[in-house]
Amino acid sequence: MKYFTLPTTSDTPEAVVLGAGNYPQHALPLASLHRCPFVVCCDGAADDYSNRQGATPIAIVGDGDSLSETARTRFPDRLFLDPTDQETNDQTKGVRYCLAQGKTSITILGATGKREDHTLGNISLLMEYMNQGVDVRMITDYGVFTPASGDATFQCYPRMQVSLFNFGAIHLHGEGLSYPLRPFNNWWQGTLNEATGDQFVVHATGKYLVYRAWDYPTASRNGTKR
Amino acid sequence: MKYFTLPTTSDTPEAVVLGAGNYPQHALPLASLHRCPFVVCCDGAADDYSNRQGATPIAIVGDGDSLSETARTRFPDRLFLDPTDQETNDQTKGVRYCLAQGKTSITILGATGKREDHTLGNISLLMEYMNQGVDVRMITDYGVFTPASGDATFQCYPRMQVSLFNFGAIHLHGEGLSYPLRPFNNWWQGTLNEATGDQFVVHATGKYLVYRAWDYPTASRNGTKR
Repeated sequence: MKYFTLPTTSDTPEAVVLGAGNYPQHALPLASLHRCPFVVCCDGAADDYSNRQGATPIAIVGDGDSLSETARTRFPDRLFLDPTDQETNDQTKGVRYCLAQGKTSITILGATGKREDHTLGNISLLMEYMNQGVDVRMITDYGVFTPASGDATFQCYPRMQVSLFNFGAIHLHGEGLSYPLRPFNNWWQGTLNEATGDQFVVHATGKYLVYRAWDYPTASRNGTKR
Repeated sequence: MKYFTLPTTSDTPEAVVLGAGNYPQHALPLASLHRCPFVVCCDGAADDYSNRQGATPIAIVGDGDSLSETARTRFPDRLFLDPTDQETNDQTKGVRYCLAQGKTSITILGATGKREDHTLGNISLLMEYMNQGVDVRMITDYGVFTPASGDATFQCYPRMQVSLFNFGAIHLHGEGLSYPLRPFNNWWQGTLNEATGDQFVVHATGKYLVYRAWDYPTASRNGTKR
């Protein structure tokens, strides 16, 4: 059965796609960003990445409308900008670049925060990347999103806050979680579950998205409880 | 046909539920917060509200786990805390309090940012409130979410960025938008549309959620394009 570990600060992702959402602040996404040798930046994220990390992106994708002239001048050979493609978002352009370079294990950073419709879109696109065979996860300042299909085991710690979003699974149940799973219809129904031990298992027919949060229970703070 | 206006800085909401997500910073949500005479705070949001606005919440709901002792001491008569109810999230507790007080038009603020699973849950709960007959909208620093059902008209401005999330509508099409609508399956598919004039119409059989963003196109910045 597939086993999904938790990120650690010693992970070295094969490839990172850095979006222009909130720039990572938490130690876990920052470690992946610092250690990864293959960072593809979405448009304006290239400015943050080069300024804050003093690093050079492998590639800069997007339509260029938020990229500084400085970055354009500094990284002329790294620009893969396509202002004409309005059908594909920058995150997906970054993932496609990685795949074209033979990188099939991809960590997505900087994809949430700011406009909520971008956040929702970027999160839900993880399901599409999984469908294309990409081994993908999204690490934020608050947790990690992992798309999955069928039965899978997830590393966690006791009382870790877990949310599951159903993307068409017709059967869903869990082991090692405080609340039962079912084929939820609405997003909120699978939120704020809690792990009981150091791993939990999801049994599913179909696809779903798992979110594991770093912090200990603070559910009520802006809380979505089941 | 139902007409959904854009928020203005002179709106005075009948009731506000202030969540403990990112505290409002943009002029539009802040104006609603400042002008509303009936502000229900979710747990720790009461501290921010009283400290930043020098105001007194009508009520403080939640399980109290993030509320300061100062606030508990300061507003003993405003506390409606229920640590035992783990099935309902704080935003919903706030909405229920408003309904119990006869307030059926509710503006939700401070509901996004921080943990992404909370953000997803809080946004999707708007559909449940609409089902219960609440006239509800969620105003963030980046835009406004409005749940709707059937045909509706939405105020906008030319080139305003619009996203539509399908919550079970079997027929969907639009007028006054740059890209066609259809009964989308995945969240990202309805994101990053654009208004062509000062209003757009959604024709639907079923329910959906509309997001109108304040800013002019910056789609590629953390972009979800169609």
